[in-house]
Parts: sequence; C-alpha cells; structure tokens
Amino acid sequence: MSNVDPKRTVVELKELRALTGDEHGAQRVAFTDTWVKAREYFKKQLEGLPVTTHQDEAGNLWVTLEGESERELWIGGHLDSVPNGGWLDGCLNVFAGLEVLRRINAQYNGKPPVTVKLVDWCDEEGARFGRSLFGSSAVSGFFDPADLKDRKDKDGNRLEDVARAHGINLDTALEAGKVKQHAAAYIELHIEQGPVLESLGLPLGVVMGTKGVERHAITFYGQEAHSGATPMTLRHDALGAAAKLALEIREIAKQHADAVCTVGSVKTFPGIVTAVVGRCEMTLDQRDLDAGILQSMYDEAKAASEKFALEEGCTVSWSKIWNIEPIPFHPQLIEFCEAAIMETAGVSHRLPSGPLHDAAEVSRVGIPTVMMFVQSSPGISHNKLEDTPEQHLEMCVQAFDRLAQKTMEWVSKN
Amino acid sequence: MSNVDPKRTVVELKELRALTGDEHGAQRVAFTDTWVKAREYFKKQLEGLPVTTHQDEAGNLWVTLEGESERELWIGGHLDSVPNGGWLDGCLNVFAGLEVLRRINAQYNGKPPVTVKLVDWCDEEGARFGRSLFGSSAVSGFFDPADLKDRKDKDGNRLEDVARAHGINLDTALEAGKVKQHAAAYIELHIEQGPVLESLGLPLGVVMGTKGVERHAITFYGQEAHSGATPMTLRHDALGAAAKLALEIREIAKQHADAVCTVGSVKTFPGIVTAVVGRCEMTLDQRDLDAGILQSMYDEAKAASEKFALEEGCTVSWSKIWNIEPIPFHPQLIEFCEAAIMETAGVSHRLPSGPLHDAAEVSRVGIPTVMMFVQSSPGISHNKLEDTPEQHLEMCVQAFDRLAQKTMEWVSKN
Repeated sequence: MSNVDPKRTVVELKELRALTGDEHGAQRVAFTDTWVKAREYFKKQLEGLPVTTHQDEAGNLWVTLEGESERELWIGGHLDSVPNGGWLDGCLNVFAGLEVLRRINAQYNGKPPVTVKLVDWCDEEGARFGRSLFGSSAVSGFFDPADLKDRKDKDGNRLEDVARAHGINLDTALEAGKVKQHAAAYIELHIEQGPVLESLGLPLGVVMGTKGVERHAITFYGQEAHSGATPMTLRHDALGAAAKLALEIREIAKQHADAVCTVGSVKTFPGIVTAVVGRCEMTLDQRDLDAGILQSMYDEAKAASEKFALEEGCTVSWSKIWNIEPIPFHPQLIEFCEAAIMETAGVSHRLPSGPLHDAAEVSRVGIPTVMMFVQSSPGISHNKLEDTPEQHLEMCVQAFDRLAQKTMEWVSKN
Repeated sequence: MSNVDPKRTVVELKELRALTGDEHGAQRVAFTDTWVKAREYFKKQLEGLPVTTHQDEAGNLWVTLEGESERELWIGGHLDSVPNGGWLDGCLNVFAGLEVLRRINAQYNGKPPVTVKLVDWCDEEGARFGRSLFGSSAVSGFFDPADLKDRKDKDGNRLEDVARAHGINLDTALEAGKVKQHAAAYIELHIEQGPVLESLGLPLGVVMGTKGVERHAITFYGQEAHSGATPMTLRHDALGAAAKLALEIREIAKQHADAVCTVGSVKTFPGIVTAVVGRCEMTLDQRDLDAGILQSMYDEAKAASEKFALEEGCTVSWSKIWNIEPIPFHPQLIEFCEAAIMETAGVSHRLPSGPLHDAAEVSRVGIPTVMMFVQSSPGISHNKLEDTPEQHLEMCVQAFDRLAQKTMEWVSKN
C-alpha cells in the first residue's frame, strides 16, 4: 500500500496561508479575488494527477479520479473562510483530501475500484451574504434561489450579480444536484473549532452527526419605571425575568451530556441607568444530536420563561429565528472512522458537531456520511488564533487516509 | 385667615398644558421657546400682586414678596419638563406656590412677617444637555462651569451658547448663589413620580430627604466562544455572571426597607445568537436615605460580583459613573409637613425621595428644607400618562399652604 505524505499537506497549507492570508488571519472569503487565488493555487497542485476538474452550477469545484465503478466516494472541504479567519478552517479538508487522492492514484495506478471525487464546496461560511452552506445546499436541494437573489453584502452588492461574475446563475444552481446520482459515501475532515478534544488531551475524534438547532428570540415585557422612585416590591422588572431564564437554560442543558443552550444577546429597553427595564429582548440557541432531547429542552425553556414572567409580573413572547433537525451520520462510517483513528492515535472519542458543516447537507439527503475532527488549540473558531498542533495535523491526514481506504473498500463491495 | 383657592391652581395648570403641551405630553424643555412661553404665562398670572420678579445669573426666575423681616421663606418648583413629559411634573409646585403667595399677600395686606420668595428653578430636568438641577446647583455652589461649557444637545448646539441666548453666562452663573444670604427655609411640593402613595391609598406624604446614590458601570470579561462547539462546562460565560449579579442586587436591596437597587442596562458582546457572551457590560444604581446602608449595599454588590466572576471563570471591573450622599431634610420642617398633611387629609406617611429634586441642592448647603409629595396615579414619571387625581391636587394645595404658614411663623420667630 502506498502512503500519504502528511508533511506535504502542512507545507501546502502554509503556502496557501502565505498566499491568501495577512496579519489579521485568513482572507479567503467566497466570491472574492483572494478566494479565486486560493482555488488557483489548489488547481495548480493537481498538475500531474490523472483527474478532471470542473465547476458545477452552484460554484462547487469538483476533482474527479475515474475508477472501475461509477459508484463514487466523495471527499469534501471548503477553501473559503470568514474574514480574519483561521488558517485551517475548511482548507485543511481540501488539502488532506488532495493527499488522499494522490495516495489512491498511486496505489491503484490511476484506476481505483470506485470513482473518487474531491469537492471544494462553494461558500460554506456565508461570510459575505449571510447564507452558509451555499454550494452544498444546492447539491442537497435545500436551496431557494428566490431567498438568495436580493441578498446584499455590506457594500450593497447583490448576491445574484456577484455569483454571476463567478460563473453561477442562481436560477440554475439547483442543477448541481444531479451529481448525487452515483454518490455512495461522503467523508470530511475538519478542525473541531471547539475545546472538547483539547480538554481531553486527544488529537482526533469521530463526529456522530451535527446537532439540531432551535434558535429563538424571546422578549419579556414589564413596566419601565424610575429606578429611584419605584420600590423593589412594586416593580415589573423585565430584566429580572430574563436573568432568571439566562441562568435556567444552562441548567436545562446540563441535564444532557452533549446538549448546549446559549443566550448570546441581551438587550434592555429603555436601557438607561435610571430606569427599571421595561422590555428585555434575548436570543436563545439550543443544540443537541437527539431530536427528542432538543424538543424537551425547548419545551422546558418555554415553560421556564412563562414561570419567570409570572413571578416578575411580566409577560413573555417567543419568535422563531431558525431551526434544523439533528443530522446523525452513518453507523458503518462512524465505525470506520473510529477504527482509522484508533489505528493512527491509539485512542479515540465520539462527539457531536455543534457547528453545521457541508457534511450535514450531504447526509440529510441519505448519502452515507461521516466527519473526523482534529483537535483545535486553542479551541476557538473564526479567529486568526485558531490553530492545531503540527503533530496532530500530520496525524489527521494519516487517519483520514485510513478512513478513505476503509470507506472506498466498503463502497466497492456494496 | 385667608384661604387658598386650589381650584384656581388646577385651572392654571390646565391652561399651561393647553398652551405648552401636545398629544405626546408636556414639552416645556428648558432653553426652548415652549419653556419661555410657560414662563411668560406664569409671569402673566403674577399681575396685580405686589411682587418683584427677576431672573438671576443662572436663569432661575425669582418672585419676591417683601416682608417685615429680610429673613426669607423660599418656595420652589420648576416649569421645565422632559420632552413628552407629564403635565404636573415641576409646574405643580410653581402654581401651588403662586396660590400660597396670593393667600399670604391677602392675609398680610402685602406685608407678611418674613420675605417670601417663589422660585422657578432653571432646567431641573437636564433633558436637553444631560445636566439636571442646573439652576439650583448654581445657587448651592455645586456647579462647575468648566464641566458644562462643551455639553451639546443632540443637534450639536453647545450649552454655553444656548444658555447665553437665554441671558445666562456660565462663567458668572455661580453669582446666583449670593441669594442664599437671607434664606431661612425652603419648601417644595412635588408629585411623587412613584407608586408608593398610590399603593397605600394615600393622597399625601412627607419626604424625609433624598436618597444617596451609588451609580456604577460593571463589566464582566469571559471568553467569546462558538455556541455550538463549546460544551457548557468549558465556558467562561460573562452573561452568566451578570445574570447572577442582576438577581443578587435585588436581594441586597430587599434587606432594607426603603433601599432600591437597579440594573437598568445590560449589553452583551459580541451579542450574536451563535456566540457565548465574551463581555457583558451592565449599570448599577443603588439608593438609600442612610449613608451606612448605601455603603454596605455597595460593598455587598462588589463582593457578589467578584464571587460570581470567580464562579464563571470570568473577571470583573467596576467604574464609578456618579454618586451623591443622602440628603436628609430638616426635622422641624418634617414635623410641620406631617402636621399640615394630617390637618388636611387626616392621614400621612413618611417616605424618602428616590429621584433627586432642587430641594436636595438647597438642603445640602444647610438651609432648612422639606418636601411634600402628592400621589401620582399611575405611579410613573417622565411620561404623558403621569397624572394625579384632581381631588388630590386640590388637597395638596391646601396642605402645602398650611406647611407654608407653619414654616413662615417658625422663620419669623427664629
């Protein structure tokens, strides 16, 4: 069996950083010149490989190594980043995938048992127009051109126009979905973007799926009143109710191993030092991999908000911002991923992904999918400080290659 | 003994409302044409009285009825209002004082035993330039021209220029303080602007003094983190610490009968639905009539903030916005005020004032002072809904007149 060269991946990632980043971090924002430059660099690395490359109707860049069978193993990542982002977010997957492609090509003399497609998804981050998973959702079909056309970036440029300048017609973008016809499995490597693996001292983890999300705006209505003239017992303090809920949602989350509940924003009105808060707006974001747990956390938070409103002489209203169901990954591929990690690192850990990824779009349409996480250190995301120890980077390319081999063999037999 | 005509006061207040208010409420904002119009209306009502009228160096309007003695009883109020304010705030005192002046003039044939001065303080509210108690603090001496000169209203007009257009030179405004020379007592009637008297079913109350205030900005620093990727146990949630403190300061206040503690503003950063709050800024306003209680409430809040910061893996910093000591009113005048209320309503109640008033500026320089409150219904302030039952308005003029008589007799004997 041929071997991957993980050090080459690290070198390529560093070259990409030098080419497309600056002192504030990665600048590979989709639909910008720097993003195009990143893709050009990636395509240059393909030279010499017997692959075909094309951009689909949704701007995804596909690299195809034809195999004995038309059944396909997909390997995916994204070269785009947020502004001032981390150097590894998304592009690690693309270049690790490229290394896997090189290894497969060498091992099978340009003709592997199944067709292998490496995809660079278009605009995973949605950093410029606020629509993440752009390209992968066009492939999955969860993509509405009407919802997208009039989106504008902060300079007033329309998504429709900017996409067209990059060869994408929003009206026909859904045609990218026809690629699904022969898809048999999808694997994706990603930095964790969180602190779990680092806190456990582990290099690699198996991702069980992406958590479902309930995202709501909650408003408590009390009575604005003079902070000096209104005795404590005669107040209708909207902030009091909100503070109780902000603490209670944490207790609700802690009842479940992997659940998270977050109040990310609190706004007070009139919001002045001399007035009891008459209205308090807050956001709630709840996530879990289990749909039943997610539902019960939502119900508990709702009931708690009503109880606290009553206690404070306030009223409360809820308004849904967005939600998505949990998307579990494929049991067999989870097993392969765990085995690949064990063979590489001797220790593994199963964890859900809180952030969404392109893998969720692929998995939700029934294509067997799994993701592998490599430790982030520090465990933060969308920040130039985002990093991963070089030793772990090399390990993850090894482990991901093993996962690719196991999955390819499985696809070829099914 | 002559009598006041409380119904005339109500008629005058309604005429003032028709002249200077609109559908959004009172518009007698200091240093505006509407405020000037209110003063013109007031001065017109003085016609026929043997008084002299002049505006002092700080814009206060003084109406003097010379008496047998040069010792002076002061009666004060303010015609200025906040934008969209209540129809009675401040001006009730001026017109009730006018009615008292008429009664005294009639009773003593234009020559009362002591000199009586009715003052319309300039810019009590500070609505336009953010500096309340403008005129009364110039008289007390707690007035710093250097701090005021460059203040601007929302349209960019400088206080110094606007004041000059109304006959006030900031550099010489402190000369208004020379009026204190013969001051022997100060009384002020005001709507409560709070819900205490209404909740007790009482028309009138004796004000014990104005509460001291500790006003601080508190910031908790945690760690911004992805709401999906960061487990509950690995968070440094600045909002968690702030929510605990927002609830705890209420418990601190409730240990003391008349104390109030208020968090009026909470701001979260980055303040987005998908991020754990990395920084949370909040305001704290604490008030009590007892300096020792105020100090202990401050100490307890500070200690609680440090405890909660520690619990949440955060740090906390405090920054003083403003503070003022409690200003108790004069024991003898408090007795007079209570007697006057008992004679008028048969029942009285002693309460502190949470809001500051011009009376605090007068009292803090040692002039014997007391205030009388009349019920607000509903008990809210700085709002067009602010009101007082007409029956109580008439009662308060009667009671205030009795307070004036008792105080005048006391001044004449001392």
